[in-house]
Amino acid sequence: MSSFAVRTDLALEDRERIGDAGGEIRGVVLEEEEREKTGVRITRVRIETKNGAKLMGKPMGTYITLEAPALTEQDEAYHREVSEELARQLKSVMPEGKKELAVLVVGLGNRDVTADSLGPNVADHLFVNRHMVMEYGRAVCTKGRMNSVSCIVPGVMAKTGMESAEIVHGVVKETGPDFLIAVDALAARSTRRLNRTIQVSTSGINPGSGVGNHRNALTKESLGVPVIAIGVPTVVDAATIVGDALERMEKDSGLKLIAAREHPRAMSELNNMYVTSKDIDEVIKRLSFTVSEGINIALDMETEA
Amino acid sequence: MSSFAVRTDLALEDRERIGDAGGEIRGVVLEEEEREKTGVRITRVRIETKNGAKLMGKPMGTYITLEAPALTEQDEAYHREVSEELARQLKSVMPEGKKELAVLVVGLGNRDVTADSLGPNVADHLFVNRHMVMEYGRAVCTKGRMNSVSCIVPGVMAKTGMESAEIVHGVVKETGPDFLIAVDALAARSTRRLNRTIQVSTSGINPGSGVGNHRNALTKESLGVPVIAIGVPTVVDAATIVGDALERMEKDSGLKLIAAREHPRAMSELNNMYVTSKDIDEVIKRLSFTVSEGINIALDMETEA
Amino acid sequence: MSSFAVRTDLALEDRERIGDAGGEIRGVVLEEEEREKTGVRITRVRIETKNGAKLMGKPMGTYITLEAPALTEQDEAYHREVSEELARQLKSVMPEGKKELAVLVVGLGNRDVTADSLGPNVADHLFVNRHMVMEYGRAVCTKGRMNSVSCIVPGVMAKTGMESAEIVHGVVKETGPDFLIAVDALAARSTRRLNRTIQVSTSGINPGSGVGNHRNALTKESLGVPVIAIGVPTVVDAATIVGDALERMEKDSGLKLIAAREHPRAMSELNNMYVTSKDIDEVIKRLSFTVSEGINIALDMETEA
Amino acid sequence: MSSFAVRTDLALEDRERIGDAGGEIRGVVLEEEEREKTGVRITRVRIETKNGAKLMGKPMGTYITLEAPALTEQDEAYHREVSEELARQLKSVMPEGKKELAVLVVGLGNRDVTADSLGPNVADHLFVNRHMVMEYGRAVCTKGRMNSVSCIVPGVMAKTGMESAEIVHGVVKETGPDFLIAVDALAARSTRRLNRTIQVSTSGINPGSGVGNHRNALTKESLGVPVIAIGVPTVVDAATIVGDALERMEKDSGLKLIAAREHPRAMSELNNMYVTSKDIDEVIKRLSFTVSEGINIALDMETEA
Repeated sequence: MSSFAVRTDLALEDRERIGDAGGEIRGVVLEEEEREKTGVRITRVRIETKNGAKLMGKPMGTYITLEAPALTEQDEAYHREVSEELARQLKSVMPEGKKELAVLVVGLGNRDVTADSLGPNVADHLFVNRHMVMEYGRAVCTKGRMNSVSCIVPGVMAKTGMESAEIVHGVVKETGPDFLIAVDALAARSTRRLNRTIQVSTSGINPGSGVGNHRNALTKESLGVPVIAIGVPTVVDAATIVGDALERMEKDSGLKLIAAREHPRAMSELNNMYVTSKDIDEVIKRLSFTVSEGINIALDMETEA
Repeated sequence: MSSFAVRTDLALEDRERIGDAGGEIRGVVLEEEEREKTGVRITRVRIETKNGAKLMGKPMGTYITLEAPALTEQDEAYHREVSEELARQLKSVMPEGKKELAVLVVGLGNRDVTADSLGPNVADHLFVNRHMVMEYGRAVCTKGRMNSVSCIVPGVMAKTGMESAEIVHGVVKETGPDFLIAVDALAARSTRRLNRTIQVSTSGINPGSGVGNHRNALTKESLGVPVIAIGVPTVVDAATIVGDALERMEKDSGLKLIAAREHPRAMSELNNMYVTSKDIDEVIKRLSFTVSEGINIALDMETEA
Repeated sequence: MSSFAVRTDLALEDRERIGDAGGEIRGVVLEEEEREKTGVRITRVRIETKNGAKLMGKPMGTYITLEAPALTEQDEAYHREVSEELARQLKSVMPEGKKELAVLVVGLGNRDVTADSLGPNVADHLFVNRHMVMEYGRAVCTKGRMNSVSCIVPGVMAKTGMESAEIVHGVVKETGPDFLIAVDALAARSTRRLNRTIQVSTSGINPGSGVGNHRNALTKESLGVPVIAIGVPTVVDAATIVGDALERMEKDSGLKLIAAREHPRAMSELNNMYVTSKDIDEVIKRLSFTVSEGINIALDMETEA
Repeated sequence: MSSFAVRTDLALEDRERIGDAGGEIRGVVLEEEEREKTGVRITRVRIETKNGAKLMGKPMGTYITLEAPALTEQDEAYHREVSEELARQLKSVMPEGKKELAVLVVGLGNRDVTADSLGPNVADHLFVNRHMVMEYGRAVCTKGRMNSVSCIVPGVMAKTGMESAEIVHGVVKETGPDFLIAVDALAARSTRRLNRTIQVSTSGINPGSGVGNHRNALTKESLGVPVIAIGVPTVVDAATIVGDALERMEKDSGLKLIAAREHPRAMSELNNMYVTSKDIDEVIKRLSFTVSEGINIALDMETEA
């Protein structure tokens, strides 16, 4: 959640917002499917042209959304199925052509801010084996193939004095992974999606809308290797909530209200505030486990423990 | 924060809401003062009659509010002054007539839910000495007088299988304190007051608006000894935020909007959501220290460490 | 681990020490069995007479020891089997005659001292349902019978100003359970038993060797209901380690050395020091889960989650 | 505490061990002084030749030891004086010639193993400002000069799959600091020095006695910039304790005992065990604050907060 100020980090929500205005969008392809057993809905938004990127306000790439309504509940078997679905989607965007891959997983966010601690918590549950592969070689492997997994939690700038991206760039140059998986908490536009949506994207991490500011980006352009981003929305900006409630009222009432965004007294109090669920601490614990399991499965690291 | 669903736990906000409708309220006395040096504003609401209690939706008693605008900032000297002001206000409502007092401090709330963890965190910083008074007597005291302080964090029902009040009742009967101080996180109506307001009240803790349900109350009636409650608002109910924003718009626009509360689509998404500040984890750390210092000073426990 | 100063909290180690001096002990019955599949060794020491208690330095009662060599390893299936064995042994000493039991589980020790945090950590993983039984009655139960489980972590005297036993006594009087299960970290005499031994005893918790000091005891005498104690040794007193090493050397060398305990320079440095395993933080996590699962199974609380 | 297996990380203890055998050591210079007010004893061991390094079993360089007997007590004023003394000693070995320095502080060790968590805890309390210097330049500084401070906690190999040194090398190349300060927990030989000794050395971090294995070293040779190491002994190897107790007994009794190290039964149980103080959790909290304050003062970062 590089910045809470973004209205939404979900391409799906951008697509909906624009889509409302009328049907198809040039340069943006949408595919949907639903798993019968789990009710998990998978949406694949492909931004294929620069124009599509401009309309969507997001870089070109593939954005896969898993919407799993029961993800906020404490049901181990369900979480396991979501982990497996996440693994399947991850595999669909992982680099091809190499039998064995070296991957660096990056846990972004702030361990000390609950709603922003998804990345560090996912890192805690991850299986890593790069140090063993380095020491004993892949000979120890009995399964025919063995990826090499390492992991870093760069921490936040206020604690390190460095951009997360600077630390990651240094580690990438030093250790030379084939690709990155970056995990981060996201902001959504709608509370309905909080804690029950996982987005997998191929465009990496682009702080500040990707305009300039390449020093902070974690992208194929800046790092030289592909970056898959995994995100879960855990907060909604408080001003967004009020603004959206007003918009819905306008629509329903037919009245033209003063636009919420320009209404100073209505909004001034909401700066630096966010909306989150009451059980966010518990939710982060469960979600981080589910996401880390998905990564472990996708990387064949399940039996390495 | 026994329940996040309450619109406000602050008597001051109830007073403002009613006061808006026109001037004085029978049975409710209001006194205000402001400290020049720190800008801390102290409001004393005294609900003196049953009618006043009904109007305010709160039990009879004294409700003192300290509004300290800079409390969200990291300024040790300022926090120290607020601790001293809190100590002064606590002393003004502590039982009189006895030279030395035995007090049980109760840290309410859930240690594992950041916004609800004020009570347990205050307990962590508190100086207790009852065990030493029991072992060595007050003879060890060189200051002329010595209170006896004990402290308990009862935990939450989902973890203990017991009401907090059951545990506290048991401990009170076993150890016989002269009075209780109960610390809890509160819900406010306005984000403006979040994390910068401390309420001290003499009416104890009354879950569920104090109607029936005496088993869960921490009050003089249920325990036999006075209960001073200290609370800090750390969250606002998300539905309240939207509702209040709409009300302000109605007033400003002169239009009569559909009442937010009855607007199903606008509100349905906000169940079980709350609004809180982005730095809530850090804020709770600082606030809990400031409140515990206030209690330590009020009980002359500063040099016991 | 009420006090680290005790040489051993394990009746088994007392028995060995005395047994060395020659065969049977009057008033102390010893039974042993071993589970073939898991290699878990179960020893049942019954101290049946006052004389036996005096010889053993422990109150009369049954002391069951589970020695599970692989308990320090990270093997979920093995831990599960140990949980089931613990459940079996717990059931063998639980009160009989009542179909449904109300039990209070007490997590003793200090959450903030890793080696002493077994009790609080077991409490964290426990399933409790007393609040649901109170609200909905046992009618909600579909299994024919349903125990009522509650749990408390009293904390340490330096933080509460109260003896753990005072808090527990108060809660027992208020809530009236049929029996108690008290979980605590223990001190062993030998590092060989650290973290791989679970002791279940029927004599409760007797701080200070049970001589006088009944205010602090958690026993049937002091509480009016049976108390089953579960303990796992997590530390060895540092002086004990050195003393025992010297004794072994004496035996092996045939030389009569100056008794270690009276050797001031050899021992003076070791006050307030203990020996523990390097991975104690990780070990406590796993052990607390295994013990809580054992309790959950014994109380038929497995499917309540 | 890269490895607990080392008998001592303190040059002072090596010096004592050898010194016992007779007076001066060629190539090793020893200076001592004591602060009257605080009783802090400062010992400066300079290993100036290869021969000295061989005798001492430590690389050439300066090793400054602060022995502060009251450091285990909770006395803020005393801790403050130790921080100031540490700052003074740090300044004496910091690079000269540049008015403003860029420093990277490295918090080594394992956050999840209490006795090994000094480095990460020191990092938590440190003031960093590199990000502000990068954004606003040193123009914002009102004090004439301003160092640039950044900080990293690399984590442990079992969690990251990378050597700490690999991560640090990457970050150093990316951000180009003028020198490093690396903080780590140490192993001592004597419990007398535990938690009350701070060692500052100029030879960096040399895992595995510095023989070969340059991949893991944090030294001027491997990084290209000076590395100052700060360490506090928090554990003693359990076998060392027993061995040293036996040696003292031999000396006192005049008997020639079987050397403890070769005594299998006496030692076999002690593998993977360490001796530490009972209040280690609390001690680490206080020590990490004292060390971080020392670094903050040495880098003129005190008023940056």
